[in-house]
Amino acid sequence: MFRTAEIGRTVSKEDYELQVPELREELLLAQQRLRAVSFPVIVVFGGVDGAGKSETINLLNGWLDPRWIITRAYGPPSDEMRERPEYWRYWRDLPPNGRIGLFQSSWYHRHILDRVYEKTTEPELDEALERIATFERTLADGNALILKFWMHLGKKAQKKRLEQLEKDPLTSWRVKDSDRDHLKRYDGFVATAERTIMRTSNGQASWHIVEGFDERYRSLTVGRILLESLHKHFDEIELMKEAQAARKAKREESLAASGEPTSASTLDKFASTGVIQNGSPLTILSGLDMTKKLEKKDYKHQLEHHLGRLNKRARKAHDLGISTIVVFEGWDAAGKGGAIRRLVSAIDARASQVIPIAAPTDEEMEYHYLWRFWRHLSRAGRFTIFDRSWYGRVLVERVEGFATESEWKRSYAEINDFEDQVVRHGIVLCKFWMHITKEEQLRRFEERQRIPYKQWKLTDEDWRNREKWEDYELAVNDMVERTSTTFAPWTMVEANDKRLARVKVLETISDRLKTRLKQAEDSKK
Amino acid sequence: MFRTAEIGRTVSKEDYELQVPELREELLLAQQRLRAVSFPVIVVFGGVDGAGKSETINLLNGWLDPRWIITRAYGPPSDEMRERPEYWRYWRDLPPNGRIGLFQSSWYHRHILDRVYEKTTEPELDEALERIATFERTLADGNALILKFWMHLGKKAQKKRLEQLEKDPLTSWRVKDSDRDHLKRYDGFVATAERTIMRTSNGQASWHIVEGFDERYRSLTVGRILLESLHKHFDEIELMKEAQAARKAKREESLAASGEPTSASTLDKFASTGVIQNGSPLTILSGLDMTKKLEKKDYKHQLEHHLGRLNKRARKAHDLGISTIVVFEGWDAAGKGGAIRRLVSAIDARASQVIPIAAPTDEEMEYHYLWRFWRHLSRAGRFTIFDRSWYGRVLVERVEGFATESEWKRSYAEINDFEDQVVRHGIVLCKFWMHITKEEQLRRFEERQRIPYKQWKLTDEDWRNREKWEDYELAVNDMVERTSTTFAPWTMVEANDKRLARVKVLETISDRLKTRLKQAEDSKK
Repeated sequence: MFRTAEIGRTVSKEDYELQVPELREELLLAQQRLRAVSFPVIVVFGGVDGAGKSETINLLNGWLDPRWIITRAYGPPSDEMRERPEYWRYWRDLPPNGRIGLFQSSWYHRHILDRVYEKTTEPELDEALERIATFERTLADGNALILKFWMHLGKKAQKKRLEQLEKDPLTSWRVKDSDRDHLKRYDGFVATAERTIMRTSNGQASWHIVEGFDERYRSLTVGRILLESLHKHFDEIELMKEAQAARKAKREESLAASGEPTSASTLDKFASTGVIQNGSPLTILSGLDMTKKLEKKDYKHQLEHHLGRLNKRARKAHDLGISTIVVFEGWDAAGKGGAIRRLVSAIDARASQVIPIAAPTDEEMEYHYLWRFWRHLSRAGRFTIFDRSWYGRVLVERVEGFATESEWKRSYAEINDFEDQVVRHGIVLCKFWMHITKEEQLRRFEERQRIPYKQWKLTDEDWRNREKWEDYELAVNDMVERTSTTFAPWTMVEANDKRLARVKVLETISDRLKTRLKQAEDSKK
Repeated sequence: MFRTAEIGRTVSKEDYELQVPELREELLLAQQRLRAVSFPVIVVFGGVDGAGKSETINLLNGWLDPRWIITRAYGPPSDEMRERPEYWRYWRDLPPNGRIGLFQSSWYHRHILDRVYEKTTEPELDEALERIATFERTLADGNALILKFWMHLGKKAQKKRLEQLEKDPLTSWRVKDSDRDHLKRYDGFVATAERTIMRTSNGQASWHIVEGFDERYRSLTVGRILLESLHKHFDEIELMKEAQAARKAKREESLAASGEPTSASTLDKFASTGVIQNGSPLTILSGLDMTKKLEKKDYKHQLEHHLGRLNKRARKAHDLGISTIVVFEGWDAAGKGGAIRRLVSAIDARASQVIPIAAPTDEEMEYHYLWRFWRHLSRAGRFTIFDRSWYGRVLVERVEGFATESEWKRSYAEINDFEDQVVRHGIVLCKFWMHITKEEQLRRFEERQRIPYKQWKLTDEDWRNREKWEDYELAVNDMVERTSTTFAPWTMVEANDKRLARVKVLETISDRLKTRLKQAEDSKK
């Protein structure tokens, strides 16, 4: 794989000085255009020590306008990073739309070295690479341009390069013991690199192998590839936006002609398992027994019981550094707020946080839609309670047409990956759909209208959402079907009876914590 | 001071149950109103161990809607916190407009304990308290409602309370060795508390001493004070907003009548040292020698020299964990971008970040105006380069009338405090005003118009700003005069000659780093 990068290609000083000014100017112009076309650019630099990774990164910072560049290299994780899933630190460093992120080593680094030093097996490496590919696909699907440069040197060339660096007093500090150590393992390193490049190259994010021997050659090569890729991506994104606009216009036109309501979801019904019965679809929701009830005196007793149990377990989890994430989704007026209040009363407020999710802020709009959830992941041992969540993508954004069909469809997989990472990190994840019947919702809406101090709870939007009940029902059905995984199952809560709902929520969280605590204990043995 | 909080006040269960439902309902309604009137509420709980701090915080989370509450308690700082100025972690936790932050111990905790355990002297405590008062004044000036509760117990009552907690197996875990230790130092603790309360109580953020003996009494007391304070603050903020709107309307009316341009700053000229001479004011800027030049061959030589020196020093600073913050302010087209590019080329891109400051995002608008700068403070050893900065408050926001007169006037002190904290933490802070003459600006604007690949640099706003040159000149003069402190002086850069400007910037930063490195070395000896 690397043979073509060991042939000693060079560029003469004359040629270089002739070509650079124009390239720089074009890069600067492209960077301006990027601010307008507005997508994130993610450039990853990997490769052999001494092949010019950091030099190229510094060079690009000089060639381009550094104000719109984010440069990151990763050392050992800080304690704040260690307490969160592996990718947290990468998500928080991602460039927003219109900016270029230059990443040295990044998400590849540790996995490659661990394999070279035989701390991991080949299947473990493959699994890590699979997660990387998924991560990059998620970003690419969010319109990011991903470029990956593998800076290569042959074995002899690397040795020579390190010797050069060591000799010069100005650069000798850069050669670390670890570099010399890596050199000894050159062959293993190259084999692992090959595997890595093979398994993480795909249409959306492929590797470019650059011979790192000659500084001028590699600088021009990286600069040119960056420029060409930017131009190609400008065209693609602009075409895509045009096509989207055209589709939208056409749909609106045909809707206007047919006199149908302008709800996007009624048109592009997802291939759902919902079977239409008596005019309304048969969904997971219609299978729930909505007549279940809990008597007042049983409730008082059970509430106390579960609050006590949960309190004890939450405390223990806190001491062990085990975090819990609770997601509440459900119909308007289904009792999310009440359930959250009971839950909060059981746990120490200082170790918990409720995150109400509304429309994204303009800052959040500049990132991948999952970014704003990653940023809320807490340090170890905390409870984070989401009042609505990332599932908005496949609920309100789907039904209201805020996300395109391909966007919300692929988000099932993205969400599953995200939750996989969360659970893999040892976090307890509970997801609740608070379900009430359409009749019960009406009763509660009317009650809210009647009672003065409840009026603020009811908005026009609640009524509008109610009109789309059937669309939401299908969306919920698909959501539960596609994102109820073994590691992060949905719990459907029959919430026509508030007492029953609250107890079920507390009991579920408490049980899940118990299992997790036992697992932590077992692993200590 | 605490005698009235040791008389054993209680509330009967009957009374409590009679009063709580109404109080809760009113608190919930007030919380709703807070979302609309929109200011941050900061509630600090301090006091004697066992007097109910955490119980009250949990109770408020249950009484109120926890979705709009942020609860924080502070343990030992994480490494990410230690690498930044003391207040960084508090700033990042502050509630935005419309939310309530409940802070346990918080910014008082360590300072009180350090004094009780005699790790600090009384003058040191006083100095810390002075900084706290300043911090709280800044927040209060940003419309925050600040409430501080001191939960008190007499010596005997505390002893009894800890014994009670210890006896009950459900609560015994809560009594830590440190609590028993604190009890032994009760008298010293109370004396320090008294000093703390005295020195940090003022009209904007005064302490409420609450007897913590009886749970029902203290809960009702805290709840009532919170409710009353909210209502009082609603009225104040609404009055203030009305008065502001009235002033603005009046001004616009009188401007319309007089036919003057609608620039706010031309009306409320700040008491400036600027003396009008030949029709134009004499300012710090007019004292600069704008004819200075650097020849091309001298430039090349000096640039190389300073880049090399800076590179070496920046690397050393990185190894020692010393961060540098560089602020660039200046006229449009004064060469900020070019100077930043040269600077960036001297330092490792992986350890530096350029932060371009534009209008605040909607998220940033919900916080105190300094919040968005605090959030960018880097970890140890990094360069952070601000392309425009917090000085926007006293420049564009003043001139354009985006900030009220009292807002921008008090921000001089707020900025000085902020910078004091930065420098106190050991960060090198360099501030540059890039100065060009009005004629030179015109020449550069015209050049930008002429050369195709420079056109994007010139916007209509640049021309509009140019029309207000004299207003800006006064604003710059005041800014330099009021924020050029011994610890964070301004460097005025004569930038009619780009070469001279770039060298001066590099040289200044390099010199400042040298001084700081020497200081670090000396302190190691």
